[in-house]
Amino acid sequence: MKLLDIYAKMKSDLEIIENQLARSVTSDHALLSETSTHLLKAGGKRIRPVFVLLSGKFGDYRLDVLEKIAVPLELIHMASLVHDDVIDNAETRRGQLTVKSKWDNRIAMYTGDYIYGKALTIVTDLQNPLIHQILSKAMVQMCIGEMEQIRDFFNTEQTVRNYLLRIRRKTALLVAISCQLGAIASGSDQHSANLLYKFGYNFGMAFQIRDDLLDLLGTEKQIGKPPGSDMKQGNITLPVLLALQEPSINESLLLEINKIRESNGAGDTKKALNIIRKSASIHTAEEMATRYIKKAIDALKGLPDIPAKKNLTDIAHFAAKRNY
Amino acid sequence: MKLLDIYAKMKSDLEIIENQLARSVTSDHALLSETSTHLLKAGGKRIRPVFVLLSGKFGDYRLDVLEKIAVPLELIHMASLVHDDVIDNAETRRGQLTVKSKWDNRIAMYTGDYIYGKALTIVTDLQNPLIHQILSKAMVQMCIGEMEQIRDFFNTEQTVRNYLLRIRRKTALLVAISCQLGAIASGSDQHSANLLYKFGYNFGMAFQIRDDLLDLLGTEKQIGKPPGSDMKQGNITLPVLLALQEPSINESLLLEINKIRESNGAGDTKKALNIIRKSASIHTAEEMATRYIKKAIDALKGLPDIPAKKNLTDIAHFAAKRNY
Repeated sequence: MKLLDIYAKMKSDLEIIENQLARSVTSDHALLSETSTHLLKAGGKRIRPVFVLLSGKFGDYRLDVLEKIAVPLELIHMASLVHDDVIDNAETRRGQLTVKSKWDNRIAMYTGDYIYGKALTIVTDLQNPLIHQILSKAMVQMCIGEMEQIRDFFNTEQTVRNYLLRIRRKTALLVAISCQLGAIASGSDQHSANLLYKFGYNFGMAFQIRDDLLDLLGTEKQIGKPPGSDMKQGNITLPVLLALQEPSINESLLLEINKIRESNGAGDTKKALNIIRKSASIHTAEEMATRYIKKAIDALKGLPDIPAKKNLTDIAHFAAKRNY
Repeated sequence: MKLLDIYAKMKSDLEIIENQLARSVTSDHALLSETSTHLLKAGGKRIRPVFVLLSGKFGDYRLDVLEKIAVPLELIHMASLVHDDVIDNAETRRGQLTVKSKWDNRIAMYTGDYIYGKALTIVTDLQNPLIHQILSKAMVQMCIGEMEQIRDFFNTEQTVRNYLLRIRRKTALLVAISCQLGAIASGSDQHSANLLYKFGYNFGMAFQIRDDLLDLLGTEKQIGKPPGSDMKQGNITLPVLLALQEPSINESLLLEINKIRESNGAGDTKKALNIIRKSASIHTAEEMATRYIKKAIDALKGLPDIPAKKNLTDIAHFAAKRNY
């Protein structure tokens, strides 16, 4: 089953979310509206809103409530991307110019701040302190994850555990709370909310590992940026760490990574990519992603057999194999 | 009366706030704790926490509740400063190295994000949606204010109204809600909360005008940064705008500002400062600040005559004349 087929069933609700997203970032400040709308139009898979809505199906599904979770979560994700671009000196994302390269670093930073603020404004319409608490704690963890990424740039000595902790904070947590908050906002019991959190968390881990694999394996057309971008900026991902553990290639790969580091972003990643692509690390990383997907689907077993459960399972299967 | 004398009466409560501030930014991430603590130790006047506490005196004063407003507001102020430093390429603030110059832009940005997140986490302990709403809306307005400042860099054609709208968003609003939220959190009636908001708003306007005057008139020792820093970065403040309206100096001042702009931050502000210092604009700007202070004090008239009212009045008088 394709992602779009699953989404098709939610089309009208997702259109409402999309309209709300567009409306939410329209301000009385022209440049902020422009930068934010540019970001929105670059698209994305809208995984977080989709999970909010599907998780809401396990309780009392009310779109007018769920949109006040779905829209802020997508906005927070967008804001983190725009701040990430400031860091990465990224020129393109999803094949589009980044806010940072089209305008400048300062504007990208304040666009992110503005979108964070807007997200919070929307969520305060829900008079549920627990939701605010879960959200603000996740935002703090995301920042710590970003700082860990900076701290670990070009650190070839870091452990796989280090990497997993980092992507937990950077990615998995926000996906996990998308499911959890969808459940809470629709009045599900705590057990269901916990299971959905677990689904989202494991899905998020697999999703990020897949993302990191695609950065090494994909074509520029598939991933919307040159392959090897992570390595170029110093972000040492799972397949790279696993490849470094292989004695036969450790030395040559270290040499290439050091060359990239010393070139200050101008270096060529082709040789490093070739070494990694031929190594066993790709398969091992894929297996790890598959294990997380399996755990995600397992978590759903304790939930009632409604269509949303099938949809979540289908999305998880899709994510394990996606090449964009 | 000196600021420290007023603060002396609140010493034990302010010490608790100070400890909570220090605790709030201590995380399991060493670098974030370090950058945040560095910021905290640089000090500041803690005007926002002081206003929260004093406004709380008009209702049911409970420090355990008010600290959950006072600490987040000071944190939000700090986070906005650290993001402002990213923009300004500021090397020192309050005589201390900025986070940006001691570490780097990326770390400064995430330190700001982290502190924003921590502020929100603390405020969610208060199960009062109105407080969250007021706070998140103010944060959005602050971002718009920052973007307006960037948009108006070196714009010598901007109106005084433009400037006032900008400092309203950038500064006055957060001071205003410090008073308002202190009143709300302590259960004051809406009329009192509105009067305190009005006090804080007018105080904040005067405070920022005074800040902008000090940047032009103060010594490096007094203001903790080289005088003329605002102009150097392109921030055209009230006295500069007023000086530009004086026909006898308009041409020579425009020439100097253009030289500064073209020098890309390397230029000398001495000549421009001399022109402005000798102009009538200083006096006019001082009068405007005094008018805002008067409005602030007038707003207090509708409130009961408790000691906190005298303290707020004293702080307002101090702010009108401060030279640091």
